[in-house]
Amino acid sequence: MLKRTLKCGDVRLGNVGEEVTVCGWVNSYRDHGNLVFVDLRDVSGLVQIVFNPDINPEVHQLGRELRCEWVIGAKGSVRKRGEGLENPKLPTGHVEIIIDELEIFSKAETPPFELDSANSVGEDTRLINRFIDLRRNEMKDKLITRHNIAYEVRNYLSENSFYEIETPMLGKSTPEGARDFLVPSRLYQGSFYALPQSPQLFKQILMVSGMDRYFQIVRCFRDEDPRADRQAEFTQIDLEMSFVDCDDVIKINENMIARVWKKILGVDIDLPIKQMTYADAIENYGTDRPDLRFDMQLKDITDIAGESSFKVFTSTVEKGGLVKGLCAKGAGTYSRSDIEKTLTGFVADYGAKGLAWFKAAKNEETGRLDLKSNIAKFFTDEQREKILDTFGAEEGDLLLFVADKKNTVNRALAALRIKLGKDLELYSPGEYKFVWVTDFPLMEWDEDTKRWDSLHHPFTSPVDEDLDKLESDPGSVRSKAYDLVCNGSEIGGGSIRIHDPQIQRKIFSLLNISDEMAEERFGFFLNALKYGTPPHGGIAFGLDRLTMILTGTENIRDVIAFPKTQRGQCLMTEAPGEVDQQQLDELNIHVQKHLHEDAEKLE
Amino acid sequence: MLKRTLKCGDVRLGNVGEEVTVCGWVNSYRDHGNLVFVDLRDVSGLVQIVFNPDINPEVHQLGRELRCEWVIGAKGSVRKRGEGLENPKLPTGHVEIIIDELEIFSKAETPPFELDSANSVGEDTRLINRFIDLRRNEMKDKLITRHNIAYEVRNYLSENSFYEIETPMLGKSTPEGARDFLVPSRLYQGSFYALPQSPQLFKQILMVSGMDRYFQIVRCFRDEDPRADRQAEFTQIDLEMSFVDCDDVIKINENMIARVWKKILGVDIDLPIKQMTYADAIENYGTDRPDLRFDMQLKDITDIAGESSFKVFTSTVEKGGLVKGLCAKGAGTYSRSDIEKTLTGFVADYGAKGLAWFKAAKNEETGRLDLKSNIAKFFTDEQREKILDTFGAEEGDLLLFVADKKNTVNRALAALRIKLGKDLELYSPGEYKFVWVTDFPLMEWDEDTKRWDSLHHPFTSPVDEDLDKLESDPGSVRSKAYDLVCNGSEIGGGSIRIHDPQIQRKIFSLLNISDEMAEERFGFFLNALKYGTPPHGGIAFGLDRLTMILTGTENIRDVIAFPKTQRGQCLMTEAPGEVDQQQLDELNIHVQKHLHEDAEKLE
Repeated sequence: MLKRTLKCGDVRLGNVGEEVTVCGWVNSYRDHGNLVFVDLRDVSGLVQIVFNPDINPEVHQLGRELRCEWVIGAKGSVRKRGEGLENPKLPTGHVEIIIDELEIFSKAETPPFELDSANSVGEDTRLINRFIDLRRNEMKDKLITRHNIAYEVRNYLSENSFYEIETPMLGKSTPEGARDFLVPSRLYQGSFYALPQSPQLFKQILMVSGMDRYFQIVRCFRDEDPRADRQAEFTQIDLEMSFVDCDDVIKINENMIARVWKKILGVDIDLPIKQMTYADAIENYGTDRPDLRFDMQLKDITDIAGESSFKVFTSTVEKGGLVKGLCAKGAGTYSRSDIEKTLTGFVADYGAKGLAWFKAAKNEETGRLDLKSNIAKFFTDEQREKILDTFGAEEGDLLLFVADKKNTVNRALAALRIKLGKDLELYSPGEYKFVWVTDFPLMEWDEDTKRWDSLHHPFTSPVDEDLDKLESDPGSVRSKAYDLVCNGSEIGGGSIRIHDPQIQRKIFSLLNISDEMAEERFGFFLNALKYGTPPHGGIAFGLDRLTMILTGTENIRDVIAFPKTQRGQCLMTEAPGEVDQQQLDELNIHVQKHLHEDAEKLE
Repeated sequence: MLKRTLKCGDVRLGNVGEEVTVCGWVNSYRDHGNLVFVDLRDVSGLVQIVFNPDINPEVHQLGRELRCEWVIGAKGSVRKRGEGLENPKLPTGHVEIIIDELEIFSKAETPPFELDSANSVGEDTRLINRFIDLRRNEMKDKLITRHNIAYEVRNYLSENSFYEIETPMLGKSTPEGARDFLVPSRLYQGSFYALPQSPQLFKQILMVSGMDRYFQIVRCFRDEDPRADRQAEFTQIDLEMSFVDCDDVIKINENMIARVWKKILGVDIDLPIKQMTYADAIENYGTDRPDLRFDMQLKDITDIAGESSFKVFTSTVEKGGLVKGLCAKGAGTYSRSDIEKTLTGFVADYGAKGLAWFKAAKNEETGRLDLKSNIAKFFTDEQREKILDTFGAEEGDLLLFVADKKNTVNRALAALRIKLGKDLELYSPGEYKFVWVTDFPLMEWDEDTKRWDSLHHPFTSPVDEDLDKLESDPGSVRSKAYDLVCNGSEIGGGSIRIHDPQIQRKIFSLLNISDEMAEERFGFFLNALKYGTPPHGGIAFGLDRLTMILTGTENIRDVIAFPKTQRGQCLMTEAPGEVDQQQLDELNIHVQKHLHEDAEKLE
C-alpha cells in the first residue's frame, strides 16, 4: 500500500524536485485528454496532481477513471507550476505533483449532496449524511477549533495545579432543576441510575476530600423540552477550587479565557474583565447578560412619566410600574410605520403592550432640540427637555419607551436593545466584550409554586453581610455567584459554595426542601460537609457555546460532530430507536403501551 | 478570609524568615501546654505549624482548641527547626511556621475511620465515606497519576495531529458484544437510547469524513454481569488513523506508551516493542496475553508422551489431545504434597483433570541428570532424556505437565505459569515487559451458538493474503488485529478496519448477521462506507487498567475517584436508587413488578 509522506495541503515550493506520496479524496478533476488534473483533498487542504501519459501511460489511463470522492494514494515528483498557471488562492497553488504511481483505495458512489452546495440543502440532509457534511472545510475547521479550545483549557488548568478527575456518568437521580435521563438497573430491578446534569456534588466532595483544584471537560445531560439552542447532551468545562473567594475564581478564569481567545483568534482581551452587579445590569441593560459591544443603556424616566399627562404612562406609574427607554442613535430616520411594524410588534413578543417613541429633532419655532411624536403633546417643555437630557439625545436619534411591570419593561427593552444594536450595526463581527455579572440575588420568589427558588443552585453561598437577612428578607440576600458574559451570551457561571453544613441545611429549608427530602437526595453530601470542609468555589463553562462564539456560528449543531435535532434525534444513526424485547425483559421494564396491550389480554 | 500564599508541602528552608499563609486540614496535634504543634495537611503534603503564647496568646489559645480534620488558615513566619528537631522523612521537615493569625474555616466531627488505619477497615466503609478515603495520600496520588497519564496522552496525540472529537453518549442500541445500558426517551416513547460500549462506528465515520486522526478519552459502558476487575462504566483512550496499516498504528502507540512510562515512572521502554504472533503466544505461553517478565515457556511433548506407557498421556494423545508442560527452575524443592496441594488443585480450577510432574535430579546409578517421580517408570531412558532436553532442564528443576484438550492444556498451564512466576519471584516489582500480539484469527467457532464469532469485532480487517480463504476455511483467516500486553495484562487492542463495503457485508454474513439485521443495526455505517473510505485503523487502551499498572495496584476501584461495587452500586450516593413515580410516568415506563400488581387488580 502506498504510504503518505506529506499531507496534501503541506506541499510547497520547497518540495520541488522531491518524490512524495499524498493520499486523499478526489475533490475535482479535469480531463484534458493528454493531461488529467485532479485536486486531491485531505484534512490539511488541497493539492493539484497531474497524470501525464508521457510519464506513465498506464497510470495516466487509471487517472482518467478517477471520479469525485474516490480515495487514492498517489506518488510522484513535485514541480513548480508553469508561468500563469498558479492558483494564488491555495497555499499549494504554486506547485503540482506529476504522478507516476497510483493506488485506488476506494471508489465512491455519488454523494447525496455536493460539498459545495451544502448550504443550499436542508439541515436534515446534512445530519442524515453527516459523514459527507463533515468533509466540508467549514465543518472540519469548527471541530478542529473545538479540539484546540479544549486543548488550551486543559493545558492552562493543568499548568495551574488543577487535576482532571473523572466523575460518574451513572449517578443518582436528584430531581432538582431540569429533568434527569434515567437508566434502568438490571441488577437492582426497579432502581435507576440518572445521567448527571452536572458533576456539582462530586466536585464539591473532591474539595472536601482535599484534592484542592479539580477540573473536568465533561458530558452533562438534561432531558428538557425542545429548544433551538440546546442539546440533550452537552459538554461543560467544569472546575472547582479550595481556599478561595469570588475574586480568586474570577482571576484564574479570566486568564484562562484570555489565553483561549489569544490562541484561537489571536485577540487580546483586556484584563481584568469589567465586573457589574446584577442590580446594575438589570437597571442599565434590562438583563443579566448585557451585551457591552455597544452602549445604548436603558434609562428610567418613571418620575417624569408619572408627571406627564400621557395616560398610558401615568396609569402604569400609579399601578407601581416603570417607564424605561433607550435612545437609538441616528434611528430618527425610521418612519412611523417602520417603528410600528418592526419594533412595536417585536416588543409585543416579550409581553410589552406598547412602544412609545419620540424623535429628537429641531423645534422649528424655538430652534432648539426637542422631542417630536404623536404623544409629545402630553409632555411639558420642561419634561421633554429632561428626557432629552436623561439620554443625552442628539438630533436624529430615536427614543423608545416601554411602560409596564418591572420585569416586562426590562425583558422587552433588553431584547429591543439587542435587536437595534444588530440592525444599526453598532458593533463589528470581530469584537468581543466581556463582563462578569456579580452579586446576584440568592433566591427569587416563584409566583407559580409560591416558594423561593435558587437563582443558581442550592449550594451557592450567600454574601456574608447578608446572612442575617436570610430569614427576615430572603429576597434581598445576595449570593457569591458570578456569571461570565461575552457579547450578551452567558459563557460561564459559578459561585462560592456553602461550606457550613448548618447554613446548607438552612438554605434547603428556605427552598422548601424538607429535612427528609434533603436527607434522601443529598444525605451523603450533607454528611461529607461535617468532616472538615474548606471554603471552595468554582465555575462551569459551556464548551458548545464557547465554540460557537469562537467559530462565529449561531447553530449549536455546527460545533458538535454528531449532534441531535431539537427533539433529541440523531438522524444519522436513528437514535433513539426500538430495542429487542429481550433487552427490556432483562431489565424487567415495560413501556406503558405494551402494558395496555397486556391489560387487554388479561381482560 | 486568610488567603493561602504557599502550599503546606512546599515550605522549605529557602522560605525561612518569610511571612506565609498556609491552609489545610489538621492532620495531628500535640499540645505541650506552652507550645502547640500541628501538622497541617493539604494536597501537597504536611507542614508543622506552631502556636506559641509568647507570640500571640489569643491565637495560642485558639490553637489549643484545634482537633483532627478541622480546616484552617494560618499565617506566620517560617523558621528553621531547632537542632535535632528536624524530621528528615518530610520534605518540610527542616522548617516550621510560628503562627500569629489563625482562621478556623470548618470544624470537623470525628471521621468514620482514621486515615492511617484505612487499610484495616473494610472496603465498603471506605467507599461509603469516599470523601474521607480520598484524603489519604495513597489515594490522592493515584488520582494525580491518572490525571498525569491522561495529560501526557492528550499532549502526545495532539502533538501528533490527532484531534479529540467528542462522540455521543446517547446513541443507538446495537446489541453486538456486551449488553447495552438503555435510556428511555421521553419524547419518543417506546424508543430508547443506548450508552456507548465504545465509539467504534463514530470513529470510523470520522475517518470516512476525512478527519484523518481522531482520539478521545471517553467513558464507555457495559452492562455485564459482576466481575471483580470490571466496572460498568470505564474509560478508554480511543484513537483512529487514516491511510495506515498495522505497523503505523503500532509505531505511534508504542511511542505514546514509552512517553507515558518515562513521564510517570521515569522508566525507559525498549523500542520497538517485541511482536509475537497469536499462534506463537498460544504455543509458548498458552495465552494471548503472555507475561514476558520471565521465560518458563510451555513445551509440547505430545510426541514423546504418545510413545510412553503412561496411560493418562497415551489415551489423551489417542483422543487427539495434547501433552504440554513447563519447567519450574529450582522448584525441585517442592515436596510431593506441596505439588499436589497447591499446584494440582490450582490447575483443576482451570479444568485440568491432573498434573503430572517430574523432578530433574541426578540418577544415582548413572550419575547423569534424570527425571524422577512416581510416573518416571512409564518412560524409557531415551524418552526421559528427550524431555530433559526439550526443556533444557537442570538439576533441581520441577517439570509439570497437563494432558488434555488443547484449550484446557493451554489455559491451565498459562495460569500455572503466572502463579509459579509469582511464587518463585521470577521478576521484580518495577519490571515492565511489553509485547504486541498480532495475527489473531479473524473468527472462532462458538460451539454453543454453532456459529462463527469475531475474535475482536466485526469491523476488523482480514489479512490480505487470507482473503481467499474467507469462505472455504474461515477459521484459518488471520486478522489485522494487534493487542498490546504489559506484564501479562492486555492494556490495549485494535485493528486495521475493513474499508470495503463489500468485504464488510461478507463478514457480516459469515458472522450470521443477516442483511436485514446488518441494515437495521449498521445501515448508516454501511451506507457511509460507500462514499469513499480511506484505509484506516486504530486502537483503544483501558485507562483504568493502565493506571492500575502505573500505580501498582490490583484494585480497579483504587484508580477511580467514585467507583462502583462489583454489582454496580455507588455506596456513597446510593445509586442506583428509586425514582419518583412522576419521572416514570413522564417516560411512560413501568417496572414489571408494578405490572404484576396491576395485573392482579385487573383480574
